[in-house]
Amino acid sequence: MSDRSIPGYTLGEESIPEPPIGMEEFDRLKQSIMFTEDDEEHLREAGTVLEPQIEEILDLWYEFIGDHEFLLHFFTDTTTGEPDEEYLERVRSRFGQWIRDTCDTPYDEAWLAYQFEIGHRHHRSGKNRTDDVDSVPNIDLRYVIAFIYPITATIRDFLATGDHGEAAVDAMYHAWFKSVVLQVTIWSYPYVHDDDW
Amino acid sequence: MSDRSIPGYTLGEESIPEPPIGMEEFDRLKQSIMFTEDDEEHLREAGTVLEPQIEEILDLWYEFIGDHEFLLHFFTDTTTGEPDEEYLERVRSRFGQWIRDTCDTPYDEAWLAYQFEIGHRHHRSGKNRTDDVDSVPNIDLRYVIAFIYPITATIRDFLATGDHGEAAVDAMYHAWFKSVVLQVTIWSYPYVHDDDW
Ligand code: HEM
Ligand code: HEM
Repeated sequence: MSDRSIPGYTLGEESIPEPPIGMEEFDRLKQSIMFTEDDEEHLREAGTVLEPQIEEILDLWYEFIGDHEFLLHFFTDTTTGEPDEEYLERVRSRFGQWIRDTCDTPYDEAWLAYQFEIGHRHHRSGKNRTDDVDSVPNIDLRYVIAFIYPITATIRDFLATGDHGEAAVDAMYHAWFKSVVLQVTIWSYPYVHDDDW
Repeated sequence: MSDRSIPGYTLGEESIPEPPIGMEEFDRLKQSIMFTEDDEEHLREAGTVLEPQIEEILDLWYEFIGDHEFLLHFFTDTTTGEPDEEYLERVRSRFGQWIRDTCDTPYDEAWLAYQFEIGHRHHRSGKNRTDDVDSVPNIDLRYVIAFIYPITATIRDFLATGDHGEAAVDAMYHAWFKSVVLQVTIWSYPYVHDDDW
């Protein structure tokens, strides 16, 4: 679902290289995470619940980053030493689109390829390129893995605002949890020694 | 909590090198995962609930591995091409102790140092050494990160067997989730390029 009004968002575009793993290995990864077709359905449902709340969700996540200097650090404009507000804003709109894409299942090859691209955009091999900014060169992988928790746990209250029962909310929540683990797993690729990933 | 009757378990022993990060950086990592003193308390409580169920939990996790050839692969005896049963057994007893240690909070420097050791034991820099086995050289990092989901999600039913209410079970479950993310984050260290971690 490419949206050309979002600066730097390039899912499905020619510029994105083919993924270094095929759909068979992608399937093994999904199996390790217990990710099934039911989860795909729960995520589509989650998408309808989350869509009207995207700005609120982003407010919460950005607040969490803003509250921790060592996290906000990764958005620093290295020429001024201050947070680069335009950079934060541009990434924010891609982050909103990411919520939509996470719920827009099943995941196809273009989606998979873009996950590797998002990995590069966190890693020194691709950070700052998309927004042409002068910022710190790399987001340390430990923080990216660590964020699995806040990005998962904080979504539950938003999923619970619809008119779904407890069991349905739980199903959407677990599908979300699995997808976040799946994506961060892929994003780790450029950080890791050849053959160790 | 070192237990010399568990083969290859060396938490707190002289042989374990000092961790490459100090307690201050460890604290930042905990903050990124929203891990607090409350979680330490919930984990201690979880320990009492899980202790009598450790063998059952391990049965479930080993069954999950055994059900997927591409996972069981990492326990292969490379001289026979079959799973190395003794290796599986020795790791299993350390895995049981790991459940105890995960609940034995607060985490001190010896615990932190042992997390880096567990990372090495999954990575080619330390795999097979502890049990002196001829097995495949490395557990691919993508599966280690992927396992955050099954190792977290499967624990909830075991936590719910005690006489705790829903809210208390949820608190223990979230503390467990955070701890698994915290540990896998640390275990990724030997896999990652210098300065990218
Ligand atoms: C579960 C973990 C994380 C998720 C789900 C996530 C999500 C995203 C998304 C969706 C984007 C935009 C991708 C695109 O260009 O289309 C992005 C970019 C970015 N994220 Fe993350 N992120 C995570 C961890 C982190 C952490 C720990 C930091 C550090 C504070 C961080 C800082 C950034 C920055 C600076 C960018 C812009 C990178 C660039 O220069 O292109 N992210 N993130
Ligand atoms: C959340 C993810 C994981 C957890 C919590 C976990 C837990 C453990 C623990 C506690 C040990 C023993 C540590 C010690 O020596 O004291 C261990 C070792 C081992 N694990 Fe994992 N593990 C995870 C992922 C995996 C995966 C994906 C595989 C692949 C099937 C795997 C295969 C092994 C093997 C082969 C060993 C023995 C390594 C050696 O010392 O030679 N683990 N794991």
